[in-house]
Amino acid sequence: MDLGDRGCSIKFCQWCGAATKHEIPYGDDKPRAVCTNCGKIAYQNPKMVVGCLIEHENKVLLCKRKIEPSYGLWTLPAGYMELGESAIEGAVRETWEEAGAKVEVLSPFTQLDIPLIGQTYIIFLAKLKDSHFSPGPESLECRLFAHADIPFDSLAFSSMLVTLNLYIEDMKRGAAGIHYGIINKRPGTSPSDIHDFSLDYHWMR
Amino acid sequence: MDLGDRGCSIKFCQWCGAATKHEIPYGDDKPRAVCTNCGKIAYQNPKMVVGCLIEHENKVLLCKRKIEPSYGLWTLPAGYMELGESAIEGAVRETWEEAGAKVEVLSPFTQLDIPLIGQTYIIFLAKLKDSHFSPGPESLECRLFAHADIPFDSLAFSSMLVTLNLYIEDMKRGAAGIHYGIINKRPGTSPSDIHDFSLDYHWMR
Repeated sequence: MDLGDRGCSIKFCQWCGAATKHEIPYGDDKPRAVCTNCGKIAYQNPKMVVGCLIEHENKVLLCKRKIEPSYGLWTLPAGYMELGESAIEGAVRETWEEAGAKVEVLSPFTQLDIPLIGQTYIIFLAKLKDSHFSPGPESLECRLFAHADIPFDSLAFSSMLVTLNLYIEDMKRGAAGIHYGIINKRPGTSPSDIHDFSLDYHWMR
Repeated sequence: MDLGDRGCSIKFCQWCGAATKHEIPYGDDKPRAVCTNCGKIAYQNPKMVVGCLIEHENKVLLCKRKIEPSYGLWTLPAGYMELGESAIEGAVRETWEEAGAKVEVLSPFTQLDIPLIGQTYIIFLAKLKDSHFSPGPESLECRLFAHADIPFDSLAFSSMLVTLNLYIEDMKRGAAGIHYGIINKRPGTSPSDIHDFSLDYHWMR
C-alpha cells in the first residue's frame, strides 16, 4: 500500500466508473481520489488486524504460514476484521480459520498501530474451548510453544514480535497487562525485516 | 453503508475502471466485488473513529456539531483515523480540528465496536496543554461541562453516550479504567436513535 498519496492508487470511481483526479477537496487538507464525473470522494483508511494469543498449559499457540507474505514463518492466528463483526468476533473467526481452534476470549491484550503500513493490530488473550487444533488452509502447521521455545528468530511480523515479547515480560511479572503502542517502522524498511522499528508511546496497565 | 453485501455497492474497479461482479472468490466465504476485467478484488473493512475525552478542572470538553449527521447535538472530538497516522495522532488531530484544543493523551479509555455500521471507536483520555479551545469549522460551539451537567439527552452518537456513561461511573469509583465493548444496535435502528442498543462483552480494568 502506498501511503504517501492517500488513495491516489484509485484511478477510477467505484460508483460510476469514470476517471478520478487527485486533489484536496474543499474543506479538507489531504489529497483524495475525487471522481471527475459524479464528484464522489473515495476515502482510504487504516485497517484493523484482529487475532488471538492463546494460552494453553503454559504454552502459546502459533501458526506457520502457508501463504505469502512471510511463508514458512510463525505468527499468532490473525487477519483483517470484516464488516459486520466486532474485533472479538473477528479474532475468534480468524483463529478458527487458521488454527482450527475454538477459543474463548479472555481479555484485550495489545493494540499496536503501524502507521507506515496503515494497519492497527488488536490482539486478545484467549483460551482453547477444547484441546483440539489443526492447521487451516493458510497454515502449514500449528503448534503449542513453551515460553522459552517461542521461535523469536522466525516470526512473520513485527506486531507479533512485540505482542509475544510483551506477553513474556508480563508473565515474568506474574500477570498479563493490557498494552497500547505504536510500531514506527523506518520508511523504506523491507516488510521482511521485522526488527527495524521503534515501539513508541508504549502504555500498559 | 450497506453491510449486508460487503462491498457490493462497488460497481466499478478502482484500478482499471471495468465493471465488477459480486461473487465469493475461490478460497473465500464472503461475497466481494471482483473486477470482470483485471480480476482484482475490492475489499471493504471496518473503519476506526478516534477521539479524545478531555478532562479539565473536573469538567469534560464537548463539541456541538455543525455538520450532519446529528447537527446541533453534542459529541467528543473524534473522526476517522487517516492512513499514515496512529490512533493517538488521529485523536490529537481531530481534537485540534474540531475543538481548536492542543491536548496531551493520558491513556486509552474505550474501544467500542459497532458491527452494524462497520465502525470501531477508540477514545483516549487527554488533558489540555493550555486552557485554550475554540470551535473548528465542523463545530458550532465547544464547552466544558461539569459531570452533572453533561447533556446526556442531546448527545450525537451511541459511542459517546457509552463512553461518557463509563467515564462518569469510573469517576464515581475514583479512577478511570480501560474498557472494551460491543455496541450492538438493533438492525433497522435509525442512526438518530442513540439509545436502542445493547453493550455486549463489556470488559474493563
